[in-house]
Amino acid sequence: MAKTQMRYRMNYYIGIDLGGTFIKGGIADETGKVIVKNSVPTEFEKGWEGVVNNMITLSKSLAEEGGIDFSDIRALGAAIPGMIDDDNGHVIYSNNLRWKDVPVAKVISSALNLPVHISNDANVAALGEAEYGAAKGVKDSVTVTLGTGVGSGIIINGKIFGGAGAEIGHTVIHQGGEDCTCGRKGCFEAYASATALLRFARRAMEQDKTSMLWQLAGSMENVNGKHVFDAYFAGDAAATKVVETYFDDLATGLTNIANVFRPQVILLGGGVSAQRENLTKPVQERVNKLIYGGDLGPKVEIRTATLGNDAGFLGAVALAKQH
Amino acid sequence: MAKTQMRYRMNYYIGIDLGGTFIKGGIADETGKVIVKNSVPTEFEKGWEGVVNNMITLSKSLAEEGGIDFSDIRALGAAIPGMIDDDNGHVIYSNNLRWKDVPVAKVISSALNLPVHISNDANVAALGEAEYGAAKGVKDSVTVTLGTGVGSGIIINGKIFGGAGAEIGHTVIHQGGEDCTCGRKGCFEAYASATALLRFARRAMEQDKTSMLWQLAGSMENVNGKHVFDAYFAGDAAATKVVETYFDDLATGLTNIANVFRPQVILLGGGVSAQRENLTKPVQERVNKLIYGGDLGPKVEIRTATLGNDAGFLGAVALAKQH
Repeated sequence: MAKTQMRYRMNYYIGIDLGGTFIKGGIADETGKVIVKNSVPTEFEKGWEGVVNNMITLSKSLAEEGGIDFSDIRALGAAIPGMIDDDNGHVIYSNNLRWKDVPVAKVISSALNLPVHISNDANVAALGEAEYGAAKGVKDSVTVTLGTGVGSGIIINGKIFGGAGAEIGHTVIHQGGEDCTCGRKGCFEAYASATALLRFARRAMEQDKTSMLWQLAGSMENVNGKHVFDAYFAGDAAATKVVETYFDDLATGLTNIANVFRPQVILLGGGVSAQRENLTKPVQERVNKLIYGGDLGPKVEIRTATLGNDAGFLGAVALAKQH
Repeated sequence: MAKTQMRYRMNYYIGIDLGGTFIKGGIADETGKVIVKNSVPTEFEKGWEGVVNNMITLSKSLAEEGGIDFSDIRALGAAIPGMIDDDNGHVIYSNNLRWKDVPVAKVISSALNLPVHISNDANVAALGEAEYGAAKGVKDSVTVTLGTGVGSGIIINGKIFGGAGAEIGHTVIHQGGEDCTCGRKGCFEAYASATALLRFARRAMEQDKTSMLWQLAGSMENVNGKHVFDAYFAGDAAATKVVETYFDDLATGLTNIANVFRPQVILLGGGVSAQRENLTKPVQERVNKLIYGGDLGPKVEIRTATLGNDAGFLGAVALAKQH
């Protein structure tokens, strides 16, 4: 037997995270070890054919950069913003990309001759955290992203739950409350996003010209999450009201999630989660008091997500591996 | 071949619906055709051993009454109020029965020598509707029961979703609102249950002594759902405000469910659902306006449940059959 001619059969997976500005991609082995990663501009203005072509070109160049034989790649996974038909690999609708009815999986699959699996970006990021991040080893977890909006990804039994994407950010917690971008009033997103936190901070500044927020931020336009939390920890009255109300509303939304999905862990990601235990501790205390069944029922642990911007492409690798 | 000695191998399933007052049970064949049904008192005061023994005795007597050979029975399913560990056939906690950590499936299984599967009663009723009732042929459906409380059962891909029982009734839609039995404020149940409808009707009567509700009900204590809807359809101002607010709150909660689970159908059961299209039509109109994704996203159809009190034991038959 000519040993030099033997070659182990390797198993690699491509993960692609399609964003509005950049397409991030990477190739990992079966253990999740990243061999190579890179990104290219999305070129959103080229329309869906142009963008999908950029995804294909990125995949090929990743293999080349990583010195990986394309025949050792088993599947490709992709995270895509919008409403996705996972089973058919179809983008039903993407507001960010302005896409409607795009057969992403089919086109990439025939270009690269690989099985292709796609899912909503928030779901895929949650899968990344469940497979390689802060919810590793946890059966059921929900990742809630507190950024411009409130995104959510639900993992049940280690798999993405909810075909077209569960819109937890767009469940009403304050009937008749704040206007939401979705057209309803009082959505969780309108209270728990970073955008909402700053909206409430600006209102508080308007009402209280003596608030420390003015010293920290200089102006209403400049106020950011760190200013709000710093003023809160310094005991500023206006910031205290804003932050404690924020904790209350966030805890209400997270308890709703806990009562419906009964996950062992809820992960918080996005800009606000930079506060780490300053955020998770007070919210955990509130959720413990509110959760259905109290001491008799299942508990939920609130943690912060750890993969940051890599959650998307790592989740896409996990998605590719699962099929 | 002696034809008279041949016997078709039959497949029967026992379904048990354990309530606080009665245990209902039945035996059906593979097609869901009910061969025999009956009920016995729960005798809650005898403790869990006594109640489980009544379930066992009922099962044996059903087979006898139906002239069914016990060896033709393949499995038993049971609907139980409370928080259930479906996988282990364990009642974690039942407030109604005052049970904690009861190994129901194990005890019944060894007494009857049958596979036994149990689940939360609301989940099982939803499975009954999905298998034999108003959501027959529908892949994903949620059944919401508008009674003393708000119960919910979620069917995804034809199967019960949510191990310990999703408590949709205990998700907050009015942060800081009406007191709920669970200890939180503003739960969906505190606005959409029959109890809530009557609470709001009584308050309206208190505020408006000229309301037709006084003529219809005679007194605040006597007011029921029919009075409220009758006064509403007669154009009474107080009842109109109560009912339209009820529709708004119910539609908010149902849209939250639709945005998270994306079911094709939501079924309404319980006392209030006796109003049928008087209820589903105005609520459907509201949900259509509120649902995430609007015309671009998946739709949801609001129907009324049809199996009534039989949903529990028929769902239990379906549960037995699925395993």
